[in-house]
Amino acid sequence: MKYLLVNILLLLFCQVQAQKPRARDIGIPFNGTPGKYNAITDVKGVEVGYSTIIRGSGKNVREQGPVRTGVTAILPRGRNNNPVYANWYSLNGNGEMTGTTWITESGFLETPIMITNTNSVGVVRDAVLKWFVRTGWYKEDFWYTYPVVAETYDGFLNDIYGFHVKESNAYEALDSAKSGYLEEGNVGGGTGMMCLGFKGGTGTASRVVKIQDSTYTIGVLVQSNFGSKKNLTIAGVPAGKELKDTLNYEFKAAPSYRQEGDGSIIVVVATDAPLLPHQLKRIAARVPLGVGIVGGRGENGSGDIFIAFSTANPTAFNREQFTAVEQLPNDQINPLFDATVQAVEEAIINAMVAAETMEGINGNKAYALPHNLVIELLKKYNRVK
Amino acid sequence: MKYLLVNILLLLFCQVQAQKPRARDIGIPFNGTPGKYNAITDVKGVEVGYSTIIRGSGKNVREQGPVRTGVTAILPRGRNNNPVYANWYSLNGNGEMTGTTWITESGFLETPIMITNTNSVGVVRDAVLKWFVRTGWYKEDFWYTYPVVAETYDGFLNDIYGFHVKESNAYEALDSAKSGYLEEGNVGGGTGMMCLGFKGGTGTASRVVKIQDSTYTIGVLVQSNFGSKKNLTIAGVPAGKELKDTLNYEFKAAPSYRQEGDGSIIVVVATDAPLLPHQLKRIAARVPLGVGIVGGRGENGSGDIFIAFSTANPTAFNREQFTAVEQLPNDQINPLFDATVQAVEEAIINAMVAAETMEGINGNKAYALPHNLVIELLKKYNRVK
Amino acid sequence: MKYLLVNILLLLFCQVQAQKPRARDIGIPFNGTPGKYNAITDVKGVEVGYSTIIRGSGKNVREQGPVRTGVTAILPRGRNNNPVYANWYSLNGNGEMTGTTWITESGFLETPIMITNTNSVGVVRDAVLKWFVRTGWYKEDFWYTYPVVAETYDGFLNDIYGFHVKESNAYEALDSAKSGYLEEGNVGGGTGMMCLGFKGGTGTASRVVKIQDSTYTIGVLVQSNFGSKKNLTIAGVPAGKELKDTLNYEFKAAPSYRQEGDGSIIVVVATDAPLLPHQLKRIAARVPLGVGIVGGRGENGSGDIFIAFSTANPTAFNREQFTAVEQLPNDQINPLFDATVQAVEEAIINAMVAAETMEGINGNKAYALPHNLVIELLKKYNRVK
Amino acid sequence: MKYLLVNILLLLFCQVQAQKPRARDIGIPFNGTPGKYNAITDVKGVEVGYSTIIRGSGKNVREQGPVRTGVTAILPRGRNNNPVYANWYSLNGNGEMTGTTWITESGFLETPIMITNTNSVGVVRDAVLKWFVRTGWYKEDFWYTYPVVAETYDGFLNDIYGFHVKESNAYEALDSAKSGYLEEGNVGGGTGMMCLGFKGGTGTASRVVKIQDSTYTIGVLVQSNFGSKKNLTIAGVPAGKELKDTLNYEFKAAPSYRQEGDGSIIVVVATDAPLLPHQLKRIAARVPLGVGIVGGRGENGSGDIFIAFSTANPTAFNREQFTAVEQLPNDQINPLFDATVQAVEEAIINAMVAAETMEGINGNKAYALPHNLVIELLKKYNRVK
Repeated sequence: MKYLLVNILLLLFCQVQAQKPRARDIGIPFNGTPGKYNAITDVKGVEVGYSTIIRGSGKNVREQGPVRTGVTAILPRGRNNNPVYANWYSLNGNGEMTGTTWITESGFLETPIMITNTNSVGVVRDAVLKWFVRTGWYKEDFWYTYPVVAETYDGFLNDIYGFHVKESNAYEALDSAKSGYLEEGNVGGGTGMMCLGFKGGTGTASRVVKIQDSTYTIGVLVQSNFGSKKNLTIAGVPAGKELKDTLNYEFKAAPSYRQEGDGSIIVVVATDAPLLPHQLKRIAARVPLGVGIVGGRGENGSGDIFIAFSTANPTAFNREQFTAVEQLPNDQINPLFDATVQAVEEAIINAMVAAETMEGINGNKAYALPHNLVIELLKKYNRVK
Repeated sequence: MKYLLVNILLLLFCQVQAQKPRARDIGIPFNGTPGKYNAITDVKGVEVGYSTIIRGSGKNVREQGPVRTGVTAILPRGRNNNPVYANWYSLNGNGEMTGTTWITESGFLETPIMITNTNSVGVVRDAVLKWFVRTGWYKEDFWYTYPVVAETYDGFLNDIYGFHVKESNAYEALDSAKSGYLEEGNVGGGTGMMCLGFKGGTGTASRVVKIQDSTYTIGVLVQSNFGSKKNLTIAGVPAGKELKDTLNYEFKAAPSYRQEGDGSIIVVVATDAPLLPHQLKRIAARVPLGVGIVGGRGENGSGDIFIAFSTANPTAFNREQFTAVEQLPNDQINPLFDATVQAVEEAIINAMVAAETMEGINGNKAYALPHNLVIELLKKYNRVK
Repeated sequence: MKYLLVNILLLLFCQVQAQKPRARDIGIPFNGTPGKYNAITDVKGVEVGYSTIIRGSGKNVREQGPVRTGVTAILPRGRNNNPVYANWYSLNGNGEMTGTTWITESGFLETPIMITNTNSVGVVRDAVLKWFVRTGWYKEDFWYTYPVVAETYDGFLNDIYGFHVKESNAYEALDSAKSGYLEEGNVGGGTGMMCLGFKGGTGTASRVVKIQDSTYTIGVLVQSNFGSKKNLTIAGVPAGKELKDTLNYEFKAAPSYRQEGDGSIIVVVATDAPLLPHQLKRIAARVPLGVGIVGGRGENGSGDIFIAFSTANPTAFNREQFTAVEQLPNDQINPLFDATVQAVEEAIINAMVAAETMEGINGNKAYALPHNLVIELLKKYNRVK
Repeated sequence: MKYLLVNILLLLFCQVQAQKPRARDIGIPFNGTPGKYNAITDVKGVEVGYSTIIRGSGKNVREQGPVRTGVTAILPRGRNNNPVYANWYSLNGNGEMTGTTWITESGFLETPIMITNTNSVGVVRDAVLKWFVRTGWYKEDFWYTYPVVAETYDGFLNDIYGFHVKESNAYEALDSAKSGYLEEGNVGGGTGMMCLGFKGGTGTASRVVKIQDSTYTIGVLVQSNFGSKKNLTIAGVPAGKELKDTLNYEFKAAPSYRQEGDGSIIVVVATDAPLLPHQLKRIAARVPLGVGIVGGRGENGSGDIFIAFSTANPTAFNREQFTAVEQLPNDQINPLFDATVQAVEEAIINAMVAAETMEGINGNKAYALPHNLVIELLKKYNRVK
């Protein structure tokens, strides 16, 4: 009985823990109407899982750590291995997203999307194939496919050349994927990230739009590690300039040629709107508009690579039979463009709001966006009451 | 009565004239099975019209001529203005094809495809818009569209800086468009062209393939003006090398820096197979394989731009309503790739076989491919009995 | 003597007229440091000319007008015909920019850039070739090239199907091209444009940045005709929402299916920084970030096509000889990205600030951005004192 | 003394072994002039290494084998880590080449190029990073880069889901890289490959061309695993059709839906000609012409991805300083296009001529191209005496 009570309390605590305030909870205004969870999982079928690896502290000893990294898995149709229509766009290609030539060619995404750190793309990529074998994802006796694995760099906080992500971490991210509420901030692949001058990480948001008689959802997940503090803009307010003297990064062993704006952002856009591959390219190519609004400039050191997929048309993929697919008219697509830009903006700010101050290798430290100062700024600029 | 007889005889004569031997008639072997007309018009609905402008001879006097040029019009669904799915590829971009950004973006081709000489793209482009007004092509009270107009250069035979193509020539090409048998060689936009060392021009071919239980047609039309004689290859035979001493071009007033391989080839691929826009990109990107087989190298001076469209899914385009479209499985597309390469090869050779020796400005002369020598070569290399 | 005085007074008056307040003159804040003229002409060598065609009023009678249109010409090196390195990007391809395949292929822009209305691309395109002949632009005895002509749609104010732009207008724009101060608003190709809910038009801006020991300029010219009022954002302030009840467009004969966001923006970015063609692609692909900041979403009905060129390396183009060219390190390019985004933002707002209320066909009217209300808004949001 | 003799004999034997006849040795005619080794290593500085893994026979037991696979490493400047200008093209994207977004963006290739089997891209990719650490490839204290790893599928002969390629194999390929003579056929990544109906593998060839007063080399290496037997064309002769009854593949446990044309070809083109990144794209985009000539059609199941780099301009890459680079005029590039097509053709045929019959998993067998029958065919078609 006592244990039960403790468990219930723990559960409640975790719930509260988990549901720490998000950007709009602290009063930051955004345009558009979010879905139930304001998350990529508002697109029915989409599941997200994390593996978060945090251990050690102090001076970096290669292969020992400290470790601040992880893996994120996005399964477009959950455990259903049916490919989805997809396409992608690179605003600045200083990064990696594997599996893209086949998406361009075929119009389909056949695998989960994995996001990890720069140096762990390989291990995660092969692990996805092994996971397919383990889980019987593919029933066929002959097949090949090209896992989609993207990355951003966490080497300021993480012993990235220690290669701490293992196959098991990829499995954990895949196996723990779920719909519904999603954690943000220092989780999964986003664990060790920095963004626009502060601690970055994983963020998500969604928008619901009405087109003709149908309602569609745009869901976005970002691994956010990009941008220069001076350009940070929140709800139109020049936050980066205003906070220029606020503590953000402390590098004990500063790299000699790191530049402002080094970093990256991976954006995954999901929708249930029936878009064909070339229309999903259009969605992916609108992501930069949202990135620009918060202050990204596609900086040279940044790998800003975006992928969009549609869960509509579940029977589109067929190796033998001709299929009938539904298509949204180009002339009706604008609300989805708007929704994409809005959700990208909010997901990035969500990542920053959720991310907590983190100390990593060599005592390097990335400070969380100071919520109270942000609110003060929004008041100063009359963006909140 | 006498006149009637004369007319009938003339008609018969023209028919015979028109149906001069094509490449396979003189014994050149090709792979695959052509459609009824072995022409782009084997794809149901496709119509082609020409305006051929030949006048004057002798020294070039700008704006007076001699004139050796024209316009070709391809209407994907004839007079039906319903857009078709389309896409395009540029092997070498030393040329022009207008209207392509909207094809890439929307997936649709909304206008006829026009082909003319390099300096007449503008007049033909605006003429298409005027023709839309004249013919009531668009019923809507507000619209804009981007005519697709491509070109190749005929300035060795034609007074190209005399700008002899007029709006009326574009109208003539559009108004005369028809299905069925097509003229080849020195007609339409192909009038003044040169190719792989000999007279080039307009050519066409088609292939019929079976996929699952359905039969599909690939139809190709080329305006062929490219390539270096040394690389001319017919049915695998190194014809260019063998014919290296055969008269081909005579330039009385040779331009100072013309290079072998200057020229261009525009290729239009039509199909009734239900391909989505990204699949039509795949078709367009296989065209170089056919161009390479006859000897093209995407030379620097060449504008090798290819467009592919599908007449399937006639109700795909709709500004208001969601539409259901049929889609061919990627795993079943190979026969269409093969057919495209085969038809491109034959259409180019058809253009050369049909084109007759032409004298143009300043007595410049492009000689026809010598049929008899080609047959001898094919015998020498055991490609025909 | 009296005439001289009058002339001087007139000259002064015109000067004053011409130099009506620009965006920063009325207090709108922007980031970065502009060049002398805050115009694309701050990049040495760049010249811009206009032909503005305004005549008639009242009900539209096709071919009679009213006419509200024009042509803009940008000459990268003025009358010097030396090609410049260039590249381009299309955010949304519902538009036209001719001549792009050769830019992609060769890395060079060989012609002026012309901007006009949607239906006049052809006449302007061929006129550029004729102007080359007239002016002896090309000395060579054999040549072909592909004029770059872009457009935006002015059919709400202009009798666009009257085809009022003539060759002479293209010549006028080319012949009047000059460096230094530039007019903005209802001039040249931008005459009949509308933007983000208000009157649009031609705008320009520039930024000066220091990289290593060198100073470089980014100059931008826009023909701005895009966007939905609800997204208009000025200096981070949601101006579109705030001004939602302000008069903007009045359509007496409203088209049946025009959508918010229909329109287009053509952006020309010039720089004297030594960028190679693939680096200029990077510049062109940052333009969307600036467009997004003021409220563009790459809407379906918009032709958002951007071209960037570098006037550095004046001897890069050579048909015979190998050339040595200077190259800016990728790791030093960020200030140019920032400058591009800043100058695009300001050029668009400049176009709106300069554009005056215009009545066009059928009494359709596009209202100017109300300067006083904008200033009030900026005060409300504490963006100006 | 005896040992010495044995060693000398062994050495001679190996030499003879190694220098088995290549395509032109058995009489197959090609165009153009090869370099000293007729190999990619004719481009000065380029080094190639292999790791070949062959063990076991009989029924496939996952993770035990049989194993028929390997890794190939191409180092553009040998152990010199100076990046080279590069670009790439995908004819058919059913494959993987990592690291391409950064090549597109930056114009530079910063890593070796690795080629392995489809399921080992990940392990090889991360191993390259580890090898950088091991060998001190990067001196800098902060860096990230994106190894280029490509693949073709060897699952018909190799226990590909056994994941037999280990980090050590990547190291072996890298560490053994050398200039000069190169093995072909069943070596390195090409070990278990099949091509155009017969055993495929690794092949190489080169061409030397003169441009103005300079001599340049094009070197090609292919991992050749593509194409349908019916399209195999050797020196213009329809070899595939003629050999249609010749034993080629024997599958004891045939996969249910393998199609003719499944497979892939990775092509690496090296040159010492001073080409800029956009010009290297042109080179890469000419590779399909060579692939098409031997019978490739960019089939749906094929990953036909091509990369080209230039070893010229060794000081082009610099993070701090502006650099001066040499540039070949576009108007002089045609000989390099021709050379690329010729060398691709020969490298593919070289791979097939060198590859020996191999039995792999489950007794599956890929037969070598029968040299004697090919010679007979060439005689029949009068292509050799």
